[in-house]
Amino acid sequence: MKDADQRFMALALAEAEQGMADGGLPIGAVLVRNGEVVAAGHNQRVQHGDPIAHGEMDCLRKAGRQRSYRDTVLYTTLSPCMMCSGTILQFGIPRVVIGEAENFEGDIPFLRERGVEVTLMDDEDCKDVMRRFLARPGNLELWHEDIAED
Amino acid sequence: MKDADQRFMALALAEAEQGMADGGLPIGAVLVRNGEVVAAGHNQRVQHGDPIAHGEMDCLRKAGRQRSYRDTVLYTTLSPCMMCSGTILQFGIPRVVIGEAENFEGDIPFLRERGVEVTLMDDEDCKDVMRRFLARPGNLELWHEDIAED
Repeated sequence: MKDADQRFMALALAEAEQGMADGGLPIGAVLVRNGEVVAAGHNQRVQHGDPIAHGEMDCLRKAGRQRSYRDTVLYTTLSPCMMCSGTILQFGIPRVVIGEAENFEGDIPFLRERGVEVTLMDDEDCKDVMRRFLARPGNLELWHEDIAED
Repeated sequence: MKDADQRFMALALAEAEQGMADGGLPIGAVLVRNGEVVAAGHNQRVQHGDPIAHGEMDCLRKAGRQRSYRDTVLYTTLSPCMMCSGTILQFGIPRVVIGEAENFEGDIPFLRERGVEVTLMDDEDCKDVMRRFLARPGNLELWHEDIAED
């Protein structure tokens, strides 16, 4: 299971890197069912001028309509915000694997309280991509907009 | 204020009717700032094959990137699901006006606990559009898919 988690997180991280290369926020996500990728996505807020296009949301949008999510796992490079946490609960995704919660804490206890199995990898590469992004001029402001911090 | 609420809810309801006319779920939303419409939208799950395109999400997407939502009000014909509730919290929308919570309860206490001012209009026209939709063959299944009920 650990190897699989690292493999899928590497895909989510590649999505994050792609997002940064395109001038966006470096946060990626992958939806997996039975060890197979259903969809991968990344934050497209800047690229599409779309405030709801967080990495997890872009991934779920790309997955299209699914009859059920009860047998899926969502991988995300960064701890989910309340929009994405609410979506995980609404869709009934039973397990979420999070790359890191240092650059953004999210609300992991809330997810766990509501019955989601959360694995926090505390992955150095996931932290590093956000750090590199935030170190560039102007990006801290973009990040605060992304998480709706005044 | 009550007149304004009814006026904006009528716009949200018109969005819901448009959604049903297009073969989709009849749920509409309007984002308002200082008495002016920022954006209006409706559920596009069926039309775009997009599981995250609930009415509120479509409206917020159409509003585009906003510096802040602290001075906005979100109108929605139907009580928000957890995805949309999480989004309301994440974006810091301080007030939500809900047409009805009979066809879908949502979690209004959760929104209130987290500091959102919620007005429930218990509007007969909002109830009616959902009732008409659900009465059509096959639509109950579509609705269960929309709210991710197995």
